[in-house]
Formats: sequence, structure tokens, C-alpha cells
Amino acid sequence: MAKAIPARSEDYSEWYNELVRKADLAENSAVRGCMVIKPYGFSIWEKMQRALDDMFKETGHQNAYFPLFIPKSYLSKEASHVAGFAKECAVVTHYRLKNAEDGSGIIVDPEAKLEEELIVRPTSETVIWSTYKNWIQSYRDLPLLINQWANVVRWEMRTRLFLRTAEFLWQEGHTAHATAEEAQAETRQMLEVYATFAEEWMAMPVIRGTKTANERFAGADDTLCIEAMMQDGKALQAGTSHFLGQNFAKAFEVQFLSKQNKLEYVWGTSWGLSTRMMGALVMAHSDDDGLIIPPKLAPIQVVIVPIYRSDEQLDAVSEKVKPLMTELRKAGISVKYDNSDSYKPGYKFAEYELRGVPVRLAIGARDLENGTVEMARRDLKTKETVPFDGLTERIVALLDDIQKTIYQKALAFREANTFVIDTFDDFKVQIEKGGFIMAHWDGTSETEEAIKEQTKATIRCIPFEGANESGTCVYSGKPSAQRVVFARAY
Amino acid sequence: MAKAIPARSEDYSEWYNELVRKADLAENSAVRGCMVIKPYGFSIWEKMQRALDDMFKETGHQNAYFPLFIPKSYLSKEASHVAGFAKECAVVTHYRLKNAEDGSGIIVDPEAKLEEELIVRPTSETVIWSTYKNWIQSYRDLPLLINQWANVVRWEMRTRLFLRTAEFLWQEGHTAHATAEEAQAETRQMLEVYATFAEEWMAMPVIRGTKTANERFAGADDTLCIEAMMQDGKALQAGTSHFLGQNFAKAFEVQFLSKQNKLEYVWGTSWGLSTRMMGALVMAHSDDDGLIIPPKLAPIQVVIVPIYRSDEQLDAVSEKVKPLMTELRKAGISVKYDNSDSYKPGYKFAEYELRGVPVRLAIGARDLENGTVEMARRDLKTKETVPFDGLTERIVALLDDIQKTIYQKALAFREANTFVIDTFDDFKVQIEKGGFIMAHWDGTSETEEAIKEQTKATIRCIPFEGANESGTCVYSGKPSAQRVVFARAY
Repeated sequence: MAKAIPARSEDYSEWYNELVRKADLAENSAVRGCMVIKPYGFSIWEKMQRALDDMFKETGHQNAYFPLFIPKSYLSKEASHVAGFAKECAVVTHYRLKNAEDGSGIIVDPEAKLEEELIVRPTSETVIWSTYKNWIQSYRDLPLLINQWANVVRWEMRTRLFLRTAEFLWQEGHTAHATAEEAQAETRQMLEVYATFAEEWMAMPVIRGTKTANERFAGADDTLCIEAMMQDGKALQAGTSHFLGQNFAKAFEVQFLSKQNKLEYVWGTSWGLSTRMMGALVMAHSDDDGLIIPPKLAPIQVVIVPIYRSDEQLDAVSEKVKPLMTELRKAGISVKYDNSDSYKPGYKFAEYELRGVPVRLAIGARDLENGTVEMARRDLKTKETVPFDGLTERIVALLDDIQKTIYQKALAFREANTFVIDTFDDFKVQIEKGGFIMAHWDGTSETEEAIKEQTKATIRCIPFEGANESGTCVYSGKPSAQRVVFARAY
Repeated sequence: MAKAIPARSEDYSEWYNELVRKADLAENSAVRGCMVIKPYGFSIWEKMQRALDDMFKETGHQNAYFPLFIPKSYLSKEASHVAGFAKECAVVTHYRLKNAEDGSGIIVDPEAKLEEELIVRPTSETVIWSTYKNWIQSYRDLPLLINQWANVVRWEMRTRLFLRTAEFLWQEGHTAHATAEEAQAETRQMLEVYATFAEEWMAMPVIRGTKTANERFAGADDTLCIEAMMQDGKALQAGTSHFLGQNFAKAFEVQFLSKQNKLEYVWGTSWGLSTRMMGALVMAHSDDDGLIIPPKLAPIQVVIVPIYRSDEQLDAVSEKVKPLMTELRKAGISVKYDNSDSYKPGYKFAEYELRGVPVRLAIGARDLENGTVEMARRDLKTKETVPFDGLTERIVALLDDIQKTIYQKALAFREANTFVIDTFDDFKVQIEKGGFIMAHWDGTSETEEAIKEQTKATIRCIPFEGANESGTCVYSGKPSAQRVVFARAY
């Protein structure tokens, strides 16, 4: 194999880093903390975008675009919001470069200083709510259901490709409603969109729940989230949906005339999902040979590799493959025929395994004689010789099966690595081994922080399901209404 | 009408500004020079993106994503490039905010100063070529055909919605090739893609040509462009494609091993098209009643307005409309049924005229009796009563006719406002009246600048067509090989 990567069991972290680079998903750029998303990685992100965008539009949302820059005074208007983001803001202070007078090169022109500094958006609530003020006068203007695809910047000190980068790509939904109930329903609806996307497209099971006050979005009254388990047993927050209450409406004076002709503050939500999901996709499914991509997100679903010893053999295979390609494409399947002569079949097999192409077909001279083809599935690493006739239907069914199998495998892994724990001693032992811990918690930030300090585990969420079992806190022994999900997290 | 706009003949500039705002395309934000693209405007931009992206992919390009920030030293590596952009750079100097110690609010933390300032990309050649250095080793890595959809920032002092904004959205293609010929062919191919997009999608005829050295992209050996005429007779540069020679390859040391086993510098191109095209779309076609959008880019192609005096009548119309909507959608037509009771039909008609919906159907009780419908086309402002039967085919044909008619009208306008001029006195008279002037030019920057100073007209391009007519320069009287296009421009 041309590009070996470390095994997960040896060094999970390096396995991830090397895989992301060698499978051509992304790489570090010369700019600290900012990544380059390479064409193959970006084509997966495009599939994610398309799937999400369709769901947003089906639920009545429209796209728009708001400025990259936020005046410092705007960011400061919602107190807890600015407190949450102040430490990681990229700040624009000047608007011109010039030649240094001493000839030493290009310098920032000190005379071109901005009157007010601009923050490169870490998220867009403030600039959007300052706009909504002009868009909303009456209940007729509500609900306002808007999404934006954008880049955002959070000046992270320790970065990792996709998982934590100074600049990342995301979508951010920002909606405005006449009542708290409507806004809460929207918050919940969009969480469900994310969960559907994670489970049905990414084949990644998620736990839906509520964040504790400590982990809430800066400026929200409530943060809902989906949490996924990675193959090292750590949690990854895979999408959040925030009920903003009237916080931003009050900060930006966004009021509307209700049906009862009363002036009221608007209720808000925001929700976001980012290129972090690319990291989750890798960490949830892939193996020591490379990526495993669920068919619904695979840029290439089927690769066909010809096996030949002469130009005549290659021509014969190519002739057989051509109508198959047409048929597969008609069935909505993306297929690549790799007849390049730069590399041998074995090298190609390894390359497409590395890149996670779900189905590989190999066709040689003997297959032509027998009317067969070798069909290999990436996820289980099995292969079988199957008749050429009826191949398209077979592949359609196989892709469907692969999608489901990947999901089921991840679900079984999560279930096998989820532990119901009742004592803090057991908790401390289990957290070192990894996995999710379902434990009772007394509902206080003090306990949450003490547990975090002693175990590095955080409360990932208070799950929607399983709300009815009461007990006593694993740490304090105080009463608890339900178990919550603890884990170490990315 | 609810939202009257000024007439073009009264104040073309205000007509444009008001139309962009009132048709919900865009508005100014609180951030100097940065616009908000509103949902309706953004849905047109999405259609533009989709059409272009498809063409890029058909010509073998892949999308990727590169960092928003460019280290100052990188921007400075190509001398003419930095000279071209230095005066309009947004500069990030700090990475943190904090609470002022005197309690006066949030300030930039002076201790969080970047070692090297970062420029918010005005264009991405430098950061991309610094990446290509690692991607290109051999001729096998070429050509490298990559596009990026991104936001860029150029600190403009005088801004106008879409036409000139500090932040704008665009795509930028960046390709690398083994030979100058291949790079030149790519430069020309992508200009042709832009021209096809302008003419077939935007219904806007363009002149293809080469920029003079004065108007060339900073860092390019050659800039090709398409130029369109707006309704006030001014020119608008609608897309540019640059042959970069080996300039960026040399600045970033990007070399490859050729088939002949020689180390050579790579040849490059870049090409971009931006949200400026939204401004061009408005200025090229729209009228005093509002937008005229070519059907291929219209977010809503057909609007159906029910005419009724009772709930029974509305129900009867709705029942008739429902299967029609299904049929239209099956034919790939985007249709909206506006049965809201907040506004009267006359108000709705004006609203959809303002928003440029190409076809409007009105159906009332009498139409139901007669099996007819009133069909109005936005571009010609004509309406006719037509049979309900066969409506879908009629509308398909009508949309096609509207697309062509809009193009032909713009072409006829350009032809009527293009003048062949041979003396500088005539030139000065004509330029005040507007339009394109086809005149001979001696090929020197001095003459170009003198004409610009005296008339505010620039050379829009040296057109590919009409290259064979020689003559004498309209200003200097010196020999000239062909006429060039002069105009005042946006």
C-alpha cells in the first residue's frame, strides 16, 4: 500500500490525523489553525450541504447572507454572548497596507486605523438581530426563518483538522417567532433535522438531549444537542440548536405588534452544524485501511477497476463497462471507471479503500468469459463473484445495505460502550476505559464541575429519553430525577 | 402600488438603489460597505451559483476551500499583486477582546497581538499557490483544476449594493498547467463559460476581449473579460479570466518535473465572477415597475393569483389550480400560488412585478366558467386570456420566449448604443450621451490615460472580434491595428 496509516489501536489520534491527510480530506495551511479543505474532502462536505439545505428548505427556511464583520459594540450588546466569545476573536483594526518608508517592505499603514474595531464573526446572532430589527414590525412578519452558509472564526489555541480549527465552515439558522412556544418548537424541530441527517445520511447514531447550564451557548436560554460516540469511546457534539428566549431581541430592541396590538419582544432560535461533522464522519466509521463513507455521502459510490494484460483485454473490458456506467448513472449512482495505466490494480484497490469508496468492481478477461464481476464492499471488506446480469439492481440493494450496516455497527458499538454507573468509584474506573456513562446527577453546576475536575468527563447532555428514572447523584448522593450522559469529549 | 421606485429617466442611480432594496434583493448593513443579501436576492444568487458550478464541473474542475486569512508576507511575495491590493486590505492584528480594567467596556486585548498581521483575502492567489507548492511535483499532478466559492474583502471607500461592496461573494478558479499554451487555453475556456452564463442564463449579451495593460489583474500576464452594457449606456465588467504566466509559480517556488525530466515552473490561471453580477442583472433588464428576471434565474417563474369575492369562489379556484401546480412542477417550473387574504389582487400584481416574476396567471370565477385563465408576461407587460387546457405546454414555450426576448432586447439596445467614432471631437460629444464607442487606439498607456482624464472613458477591452480593421488612433493619430471598446464604466 502506498500510504499506510497508523492503526487505531496503536495511536488513535495519529490514525485520525494521518487518515485525514492521506485520504485527501484536508491539511493544515500556512495560516495558524486554518485548514485547507482538499477537493475530495470538499466533495463530501458538498453532499452534506445539499442534504441539509434540502431539509432546511422543506421546513420553510430560506438562505440569506450577512456580513463577515461585526462591530465590536454589536458583539458587546448581549452580555453573556460577548463573555463567551471575547477570548477567541480575530480583530480587524486597519484597512490598508503601504510600503515602509525605510524600504523594509510592506507594512500596515498606521494612518488607516478603523474608528471602531471589527470582529470576524465567531457566530452571527448580533449582526443578524441588528438587521431583524428593521425587518420585523408586526406579527405578519413572523416567523422569520433564515439560514446562512458561511465561514466563521474562533481563535482556538489547540487546533485539529475539522474538529477544532480557527476558521471553519458551517450553516447557522436564525429564526424569530411571536411566542416562546413557537420558538421552542422550532429549536426542537431543527435538532430533529440534525439528528435525521446524522443518522440517515452520516449513518451515525446520536443521543438527543439538553445541555446543562454550564455547556449552554453564550446567550441562549436553552441549548439542545445531538451527541455521537467516536470509536475511541469519546463523545463528539454533532450539532446544536438554541432557544434564545428574548435575549437578542432585547439586546437589539426587536419588537413586534402582536395580533392583540401589543408591542412585544420577539422570541429567537439559532442552530448550527459545521465542518466538524467531517471529523465525526471519519472518527465514527473508518478503519485502519482508510475511510469508510456511508454511500449517501460518498462522492464516488462505485469504482470499477479493469484487470488486463494487454490493450485488447482492456478494450474488451472497457466495452463491457461502458453501458454498465450509463445504467448505474441512470439509477442515480456515482461511478468512476479507473482505467489509468499509471498504477497496478492492487495499488488502485488500496487507494480506493483509503478513500472509502463503498463498492469496488473488478473485471478481467476471465470475468468476460464467465459473464461475472468481482464485487467488493468496503465496510465489511468482503468480496464475491457475481453475475454481470442484474448488476445495477444488485448494487442499488448493496449500497442500501452498506448504509444500514454502517449505522447498525456504530449503534452496536455505542450500546456496548455505554455503562450504567451508580457509584463514583465505578465512575472513575470506567471513565478511564472510555465510553458513555449513564449516571445520576444532582443538577448543580458545583457537582458537574467537581466531576469534570476529577475525571475530565463532562455532562454531554440530559437525554430526552429515559427521563423517568429517579435516583441519587453519583457524586453527591443528593436526589436526581434522571440519568444524564457523561463522557470525555472532543 | 405599495413600493414605488423612481423612474430610470429621472434618476437612474436612485432607481437602481431603490429597486435593489424594495425588491428585497439586498440592503446596507450596519458594517460600513458590507451588504446583507436578503432571501429573495440570495435565491437568485443560488441559481447563478448552481448554473456556474455545473459548468465548472462539466469542464473538469473540483471545488475546494482555502483559508480566509493571508499572512502579510505571503501577499507581499508577488510584487505587482501586493501593489494592486495593498490599498484596500482589511488587516487582522489581534486575536482577543477583554474587559477594560477601568470598567469602560470591552476592548481589544493589547497583549493578544499577532506576530504577523493577517490580511482578509481580497483574492486567494497567494494562499493557494503556497498550497500548490506541496501538491505539485510532477507533470502527473497537472493540470490542477480547482474552484472555490468564498467571500472576499476589498476595502472600498465608495460602495454600492452588489456593484461595489467591501465584502462580496464570488467564485475564484485557480488552475495550474504544464505549458503556457494549456494555461492560455484554460483562460480562454473559462471566459467562454462566463460568456455562456451571461448570455444564456442572464440573457445579457457580452463583448469578449482582452484588457489593456492598465486594466490588467495585479499579477497577471493577460486578463480576458466580458463586458456588458447597462441601460444607462455604461459598461459593466462581468467576469474576468487571467493568464498568470509563471508569476505566482515563481513567487511561491512551484516547480514540476516534466515528461522530459526537467524541473520547470508551473503555468497558472485564475478567474472570478462575483455577486456584482446581481447588480448587472438588475441594471441590464429591469424597468420602472421593478425587476425583470430572465426565467432561467427566476426563483419563482410563475405566480398564480386567485380572483374571488367569496370563500366558495376561492375554493373553486384553488381546486382548479392544485393539479396545474403539480403539472407545472413536473415540467420543472417553479410556481407559487398566492392565496393569502392580506392583500388585494392589484397589490399582489404590483408586488410580483416589482420582484420580476416572469409569468403571472390570474384566475377568477368567470375564468372557471369559460375554461380560461389570464396570462401576463412581465417583460413586455402584455396579457391575454388563454384556454386552461394545454396551459403547461404554453407556459413552457412562453418562458423560453421570454428568456430569448429579454436577450434580444438587451442586444438591440447595445447595438443601438454602440458608435463607431473616428475623431476625438465626436468622441467627446458621444461619451456624454453614453454608450460604447468603437474607436482606434495607438496601443499606448499614455493615450489611454489621456483619454480617460479628458472623458472619464476607459478602454473596456480589445475585442476578440473585429481585429482586422486597421486605422489611426482617435486621440494621437498614430497607427492602430483594430478598434477597441471605450465606455464609462461601473
